[in-house]
Amino acid sequence: MIEIDDRDAPLQLFGAKLRLLRKEKGLSQEKLAELCSLDRTYIGGVERGERNIGLINILRISTALGISPKELFDE
Amino acid sequence: MIEIDDRDAPLQLFGAKLRLLRKEKGLSQEKLAELCSLDRTYIGGVERGERNIGLINILRISTALGISPKELFDE
Repeated sequence: MIEIDDRDAPLQLFGAKLRLLRKEKGLSQEKLAELCSLDRTYIGGVERGERNIGLINILRISTALGISPKELFDE
Repeated sequence: MIEIDDRDAPLQLFGAKLRLLRKEKGLSQEKLAELCSLDRTYIGGVERGERNIGLINILRISTALGISPKELFDE
């Protein structure tokens, strides 16, 4: 995805926060993907703000990270 | 949707929280829908836990409610 539009900024913010939390846990994208039965490229896409991740996957990822989903929305 | 499966419980929890926050703001489903340019039936479906709402709509709804998205994940 090359285009940038208004919808991208909040997705990128969310993705950056996810990346930060994942790294804090010492997990690779691959390891996190494995823990939540998602694809590594999907995790990468979310972290780059390229995917409009759904609630179910937000919850799966937060469970895999051992955090509350609300932490993904901390500023 | 009649079937109940494991994926429903967290969606229902989220939906119940959304309904609570919407009512606290004194908004009808219709009014909230109008504020975030979504359909009233969509809001209803999310509140009933029938929809795997995406991040963009989570953010639109929290903006319309004047709250931080993390409040939708408070327990």
